[in-house]
Amino acid sequence: MTRQLHLNAFLMGVGHHEAAWRHPRTDVRNLTDVTHFQRLAQLAERGKLDSVFFADGLAVDPRVKHNTQAIFEPITLLTAMATVTERVGLIATATTGYLEPYTLARSFASLDHISGGRAGWNIVTSAGADEAANFGIDGIPDHAGRYRRAAEFVDVATALWDSWEDDALVLDETTGIFADPDRVHPINHHGEHFTVQGPLNTPRPVQGRPLLVQAGSSESGRDFASRYAEAIFTAQRSVEDGKAFYRDVKSRAVKFGRSADDVKILPGIVPFIAPTEAAALELEQQFTDLISPEYSLRQLSQMLGVDLTAHALDAPLPALPPIEQIQGNKSRYQLVKDLAGSESLTVRQLIAKLGGGRGHRTFAGTAEQVADNLELWFTEGAADGFNIMPPYLPGGLEDFVGQVVPILQRRGLFRTDYTATTLRGHYGLAHRPSRYTVTAA
Amino acid sequence: MTRQLHLNAFLMGVGHHEAAWRHPRTDVRNLTDVTHFQRLAQLAERGKLDSVFFADGLAVDPRVKHNTQAIFEPITLLTAMATVTERVGLIATATTGYLEPYTLARSFASLDHISGGRAGWNIVTSAGADEAANFGIDGIPDHAGRYRRAAEFVDVATALWDSWEDDALVLDETTGIFADPDRVHPINHHGEHFTVQGPLNTPRPVQGRPLLVQAGSSESGRDFASRYAEAIFTAQRSVEDGKAFYRDVKSRAVKFGRSADDVKILPGIVPFIAPTEAAALELEQQFTDLISPEYSLRQLSQMLGVDLTAHALDAPLPALPPIEQIQGNKSRYQLVKDLAGSESLTVRQLIAKLGGGRGHRTFAGTAEQVADNLELWFTEGAADGFNIMPPYLPGGLEDFVGQVVPILQRRGLFRTDYTATTLRGHYGLAHRPSRYTVTAA
Repeated sequence: MTRQLHLNAFLMGVGHHEAAWRHPRTDVRNLTDVTHFQRLAQLAERGKLDSVFFADGLAVDPRVKHNTQAIFEPITLLTAMATVTERVGLIATATTGYLEPYTLARSFASLDHISGGRAGWNIVTSAGADEAANFGIDGIPDHAGRYRRAAEFVDVATALWDSWEDDALVLDETTGIFADPDRVHPINHHGEHFTVQGPLNTPRPVQGRPLLVQAGSSESGRDFASRYAEAIFTAQRSVEDGKAFYRDVKSRAVKFGRSADDVKILPGIVPFIAPTEAAALELEQQFTDLISPEYSLRQLSQMLGVDLTAHALDAPLPALPPIEQIQGNKSRYQLVKDLAGSESLTVRQLIAKLGGGRGHRTFAGTAEQVADNLELWFTEGAADGFNIMPPYLPGGLEDFVGQVVPILQRRGLFRTDYTATTLRGHYGLAHRPSRYTVTAA
Repeated sequence: MTRQLHLNAFLMGVGHHEAAWRHPRTDVRNLTDVTHFQRLAQLAERGKLDSVFFADGLAVDPRVKHNTQAIFEPITLLTAMATVTERVGLIATATTGYLEPYTLARSFASLDHISGGRAGWNIVTSAGADEAANFGIDGIPDHAGRYRRAAEFVDVATALWDSWEDDALVLDETTGIFADPDRVHPINHHGEHFTVQGPLNTPRPVQGRPLLVQAGSSESGRDFASRYAEAIFTAQRSVEDGKAFYRDVKSRAVKFGRSADDVKILPGIVPFIAPTEAAALELEQQFTDLISPEYSLRQLSQMLGVDLTAHALDAPLPALPPIEQIQGNKSRYQLVKDLAGSESLTVRQLIAKLGGGRGHRTFAGTAEQVADNLELWFTEGAADGFNIMPPYLPGGLEDFVGQVVPILQRRGLFRTDYTATTLRGHYGLAHRPSRYTVTAA
């Protein structure tokens, strides 16, 4: 079979553009309406997309003024979406910073059981001081330490998913054998951050384990993703940058003893789609004009770790510290710094560039132009697929599914129907046996 | 309005009786089928029940042989049930022992938003060494310490739910005001167990706060429940015991400055319902005959904290330690000890008595007799309602809803339709204003 794209719909409230909720193409009441999200899942499934996905964070600025942030917690929201769909994958972000592996493993196992094998976990390490302060921790946790904790966390979670072998649940009413005790195992983990006896209190997930997703692009982030992730969401602004990242991560994966195919790379794209290129650019401009500079300066300050809230909008960025001093999201910091520097942007221009997707690239054009662009990245070796970030919802996803997907399908670049029932299956990954299963020699 | 009963359906797999999964009236495949639980929620809603409820624990014995334990995690399972119902309340057990208040408050807020105000939290403190071992803690946590942590945990969780005032989410597209920053508050909690800055990263739950439920019956447990709980699930074996417990908890609640009506007391009952009393007793015996002594001895050993797995089935219980030495579930320990002692039961007889509801009372009779018994407890002042524990599912709940509920309704003892839209409303409790809301003098 020819290589085909993998497409994930990255959903955020009424759209990724920070001013989406103020635009007439959205209805702000949808933010608090679970049926809005259920309809989005059904829409993604009509488009045969691999998955839908929610970002997450465990803090909010009390001075929140303009925001399309989550009202709902991702795992519960995706559960509600699971009940009205049959095939589309369901990926939730959850942090290794402040949760416990036992409860996280169990929640994802439950989503996987409820959805019949469609759960995915986007692993984040939580860089913000605001999040730390909600869990009794003072200051920003050290970058390298976060990744060490994340690695141990993932090791424990996957061991817990393995702790019931695939066929451990027997359910034989006649003999009264509920589960086979020889196929349910304590994990007896004793590590730097966690001590966990196990087994997990639920049978093995339908998929064996949920799909593991990651988005780190720093050095530690790339190593972590190359070692553990089965799909990587990444922000790449040019096809050259995308190719370099793609090559780098695939070769790291091979160094970790994996096949290059075991990890799918999905750069983000915020598509503005209209019947003509001019109309698409005009649509994008409408959203830019609704941006609140005050809110954006707060966002930019958080992204860079530098207070810009009193900075003049029509001046360039002030000098920024070297990346070695950054403990937060290093790759996003570098991306924004490079973007501002290379194009000599004023703060106002930078804010407009970032408004669509917080550093992910926007693309305005016809459905044909969007398809051409995705095909280019795919065939040039910059992507295995894409993280589609509709600037407004549901309209932006309706246009992508209704107009771009059929073009990709006609070109043979995307499935015309699902061929698998699980999320791992959509991404071309096999069900993995439990580490405790002894196979015959 | 005359005082009416509150009825909660305590759901467990294919039934509370430990051998339910082996009986021909159940289908063991339902244990792993989320639509089984969705149908149970719809059934409870047809019966106009106040709520459905799941127990929970964070460990499983690796030698699990016979069990109707959870496959699903309660909050995700109740979310799936929320999407197919409109009115029935949804109560999940969650522990204050090993979770963080921020993430727990958020999950319940999300369930409350998704369900339109139907979430309830059954607060447990987690007494088991097996659970502790999954969270890096060695040995059974001290009884009093568990309740101190629980009290602080509840204080933090309720503060987080209050951190967004009711009208903080403004969503004004024209002015660009998303939320009112004067109505979103940090909580700045610094306590013995938790340090939490806040605010919560989601607007206030629909109910203001989820219904708070508790089941502790020891001294510390009663104090805790009387202070915080709005509904109490309790195991009482006689109407006299029930009355004493009822009077005690209500008077404690008044001492804590609450109204006696602010806390509803719901003893558990495992009803075997059949057209004649003889047929009901015969049905109960069928279930008893399916009990596996080996499994039951393990259960009893865990309940008492004494290893009985090698004990002779037809001998009486060995001498048990005094309650002061018990760090686990003190009230259940006392109940089982009293039961075995007062009736001079052999271990086999004790196991049969406990098989239906792990210490909760079973009642075998006609629908009319069940209704009479509930009415007696209610009018004698032993209950504000009941925790209905069907011995097998869905049949046991179908019989209760189809046969017992109509009798209670004809007698004016139970609602014939919902009069409220929220779980708090069903239990006759008002929406509480946020502690941060300043009301005009």
